[in-house]
Amino acid sequence: MQFSQRLQEYIQTIERALDEYLTVQGCTGQQSIVEAMRYSALAGGKRLRPVLTMEFCRVSGGQPQDALPFACALEMIHTYSLIHDDLPCMDDDDLRRGRPTSHKVYGEGMAVLAGDALLTYAFETAAGAAQNPRLTAQQMVQAVGVLAHEAGYFSMIGGQVLDLAAEHKQLSYEELVDLQDKKTGGLIRAATQMGCIVGGATAQQMQAAKIYADRLGLAFQIQDDILDIEGDQSVFGKPIGSDEKSGKSTFPKLLGLSACRKMVRELTDEATEAVKVFPSSDFLIELAEQLVDRRS
Amino acid sequence: MQFSQRLQEYIQTIERALDEYLTVQGCTGQQSIVEAMRYSALAGGKRLRPVLTMEFCRVSGGQPQDALPFACALEMIHTYSLIHDDLPCMDDDDLRRGRPTSHKVYGEGMAVLAGDALLTYAFETAAGAAQNPRLTAQQMVQAVGVLAHEAGYFSMIGGQVLDLAAEHKQLSYEELVDLQDKKTGGLIRAATQMGCIVGGATAQQMQAAKIYADRLGLAFQIQDDILDIEGDQSVFGKPIGSDEKSGKSTFPKLLGLSACRKMVRELTDEATEAVKVFPSSDFLIELAEQLVDRRS
Repeated sequence: MQFSQRLQEYIQTIERALDEYLTVQGCTGQQSIVEAMRYSALAGGKRLRPVLTMEFCRVSGGQPQDALPFACALEMIHTYSLIHDDLPCMDDDDLRRGRPTSHKVYGEGMAVLAGDALLTYAFETAAGAAQNPRLTAQQMVQAVGVLAHEAGYFSMIGGQVLDLAAEHKQLSYEELVDLQDKKTGGLIRAATQMGCIVGGATAQQMQAAKIYADRLGLAFQIQDDILDIEGDQSVFGKPIGSDEKSGKSTFPKLLGLSACRKMVRELTDEATEAVKVFPSSDFLIELAEQLVDRRS
Repeated sequence: MQFSQRLQEYIQTIERALDEYLTVQGCTGQQSIVEAMRYSALAGGKRLRPVLTMEFCRVSGGQPQDALPFACALEMIHTYSLIHDDLPCMDDDDLRRGRPTSHKVYGEGMAVLAGDALLTYAFETAAGAAQNPRLTAQQMVQAVGVLAHEAGYFSMIGGQVLDLAAEHKQLSYEELVDLQDKKTGGLIRAATQMGCIVGGATAQQMQAAKIYADRLGLAFQIQDDILDIEGDQSVFGKPIGSDEKSGKSTFPKLLGLSACRKMVRELTDEATEAVKVFPSSDFLIELAEQLVDRRS
């Protein structure tokens, strides 16, 4: 199957499933929060993390469909993190993907709760995979453990804390790598690991998936920093130069643009090299290449 | 074993375990959030929910110790809900258990993250129970599912949403019962159900535990409303008359004090009657009676 066809199929499957998970029966009086959860979760986006979960399940020898609850759980967690990140007491952003942020539409209290609800529902969704007879309860528990670990204060939330502490402070290269490895890398690692667990990957494959996630996560973030300098605002979807304005530590500021481009290239090569241990790695290689070439 | 001795042993075990779970190795740079998590999670309190989890495990025929990770997970979720509830955009409270609230000490951004981190770590803690060979992965997944469901927008968060919408509005009796059944009842139900799952309760016992939780949760809330009117501030720990001042809907306002006292008595009787299906129900009966008689 062609790369773009498979990617489209994954994205459609994920968006359909998210829509279904967030169509709620049996809620009396609290439909307003479901609306707020849907507003943010069904607002488009690359769906990179859930796509990775499904593809790593497939290349590990599983049915991508079996990884769907975990893929959706991951996207719910990614969405909640954006809602809370946009709050006035955090980054205080009014726009996300060209639309008003959750607290602008629903108020701050409801935005906090919508984030909390998406995070909690992610684990209910993951636990719901137990109904699939092809999955062992062992796989389930392992995947839930990975999800909670990489979304928590060791990893993603830890990265947010480092980010909050780094405001108006210039980080060293090592500190910035550590921050991004947690903040962006955490959920990407979870994505690949959960796919491997559900697909029944070998220990060697799990390790390769981890390298792919680490390299890809960092390349993704450096590319983001590059686009914030030389991107096209109408394609990028957020204002160009916002990092500079907010005084944020970035890779181009530390290393210069040309060294950053070189790093993105090298990290991508390492990522694509690593996944060659899987019998079929074309999609993962193409996906990594597209992320390097992206303009948005 | 005497009631008070067993209660003390449970509380000590739970507080020691929480302390250990929240003693963190391998966190580089983000220790500040662990401090914020500890500040709220180790601030005392009745520990009612985790005590219920351990006792329901015991009366169902299990080792209370086996339920400990789930008991602690539940207390982490209870703690996060208080941190977020106290935020300026929610109830805007400066004091909790006689101490400044999390956002007063650590700032709003960090309080949001500390809550998020406790919620996420709760699921990591629950998933960590998989290391116990006496538990099947099946039990694990079932317990995680119950926890996520009762903590989520169907139940606890749903109750918060109803609460947010009810500000300065007089609810009907049915609406208030529904709100409290979700907001307070949710985690109490989760407590009893997880204990039953880990202890290997029968379906009949699970049902009895649910009745106990529902009746106890409601009685607990009505008693709270009564204490807000006629309690002793130095014992109760929060200002007397705060419900009246904030214009909150309460049971005494709807039904009068004497009908409320009668309801608390009846609900407690129904709760204690229900758990007589367990071979040993003395502790659960005594616990319910103490909650009715409490002054704080």
